[in-house]
Amino acid sequence: MKENEILTNATTWIKEAGERIVQSFQTTLSIETKTNANDLVTNIDKDTEKFFIAKIKEKYPKHRVLGEEGNGDRLEELKGIVWIIDPIDGTMNFIHQHRNFAISIGIYEDGVGKIGLIYDVVQDELYYALKGKGAFFNGVPLPKLTSVNISEAIIGLNATWVTPNRRIDPSILGALVRDVRGTRSYGSAAIEIAQVAAGRLDAYMTLRLSPWDFAAGLILIEEVGGVASTLKGEPIQLLEQNTIFISRPGLHEQILKNYLYGKI
Amino acid sequence: MKENEILTNATTWIKEAGERIVQSFQTTLSIETKTNANDLVTNIDKDTEKFFIAKIKEKYPKHRVLGEEGNGDRLEELKGIVWIIDPIDGTMNFIHQHRNFAISIGIYEDGVGKIGLIYDVVQDELYYALKGKGAFFNGVPLPKLTSVNISEAIIGLNATWVTPNRRIDPSILGALVRDVRGTRSYGSAAIEIAQVAAGRLDAYMTLRLSPWDFAAGLILIEEVGGVASTLKGEPIQLLEQNTIFISRPGLHEQILKNYLYGKI
Repeated sequence: MKENEILTNATTWIKEAGERIVQSFQTTLSIETKTNANDLVTNIDKDTEKFFIAKIKEKYPKHRVLGEEGNGDRLEELKGIVWIIDPIDGTMNFIHQHRNFAISIGIYEDGVGKIGLIYDVVQDELYYALKGKGAFFNGVPLPKLTSVNISEAIIGLNATWVTPNRRIDPSILGALVRDVRGTRSYGSAAIEIAQVAAGRLDAYMTLRLSPWDFAAGLILIEEVGGVASTLKGEPIQLLEQNTIFISRPGLHEQILKNYLYGKI
Repeated sequence: MKENEILTNATTWIKEAGERIVQSFQTTLSIETKTNANDLVTNIDKDTEKFFIAKIKEKYPKHRVLGEEGNGDRLEELKGIVWIIDPIDGTMNFIHQHRNFAISIGIYEDGVGKIGLIYDVVQDELYYALKGKGAFFNGVPLPKLTSVNISEAIIGLNATWVTPNRRIDPSILGALVRDVRGTRSYGSAAIEIAQVAAGRLDAYMTLRLSPWDFAAGLILIEEVGGVASTLKGEPIQLLEQNTIFISRPGLHEQILKNYLYGKI
């Protein structure tokens, strides 16, 4: 795999796609709902995914693409080189705020994460990682993550998961909310995972995430020495929906041991 | 009151203070805790407040200043012209993230809000309002807010208030979390109120806020036709701690009626 060449092309395409999205703010969005009333998709999500697929298929006809909007290939395994793409992660923010959304691209070879890019379009902030070569924020290397105590941690966690919901007893993460220094919620999993990689959040957890939401983030997290698992502490399955728990090392163990093991 | 001249000076000073804060990222912070372990203050909070007080007292010796860090005047009423200043709103973000904090300045004359400025330092985004003349984001007028339905609303609300806590029964706002489209939490009240003014959040609520946290935001909200009250729907007291509920019009009424009246 020609990693540097692919990274260069992916970077060029992600910035071009970002410009097209910003231009779309002038036009009227066509908004549809997907599996539930709050799972939104727009014509811009779809157009952006098609833009990437066209670029990739032209330059790398043998690469396969798994995209949130379903315009790519149907994959049951990860043989060869696969681009896992979320054209707009944080569609609700995109629609309501015109900011706080990202393009997320994870490039895997035979199931191993090689290149991850998360691009916060409106702030023009690019996080990327190359396996074995580190992670970068706007070109500046991100330092390795170290541990913090639970009482000094800021966690990315949405209020949904500590109110009665279909997926988790609210008292489980409620106990964590009580003990940490603070919680934040930005509404884009890709951006939240990138914030953990950059040391701005100490952990991030959520109860349901799809491959395109975390494919790039996992590569960033590995490069800065963070830990990624399900909320049970098990490995994340790349082609399935998972619960997600990403954290600084050390803190990950503390939270698993004191709040999650045996309760999820 | 020479509003335009004061706005020009306040804008100059807020940008200069922002530059000094960004430069401070290079130096080591001295961090203290205040009333509780997570209520943090740094030497930069204090220095920034002193910077504003020196500028104001030099140019406007008769104006009084109420500042979060207590270096200003002791006020028991709001006669004359009073600057209400939070030198760094979102100190926890400032320390942990080096972003997502703001300088907040509200300027009142005989208790009436005349000029409000909220400056997101790292993003270089300035929100300001002049009473009767509208509110602006980076110089562009913000449109008047219109209503949305609860099911389509995004609310700024921290997970703390829907987990067991000392201030509110978690089931009260938990019911709202269940019914809205989504919640977000950014960790700076000034920025969150500014997001409501800019239409990026539909409402914002919290259980404890001090005058310097909301003094500027209230002026912005009034200029865009938003509604500000306590969680009981009562007027906010400018010199006291309050619960805070800021919202688009219409939505404010719906939420008060369906979730808050008789329960708080």
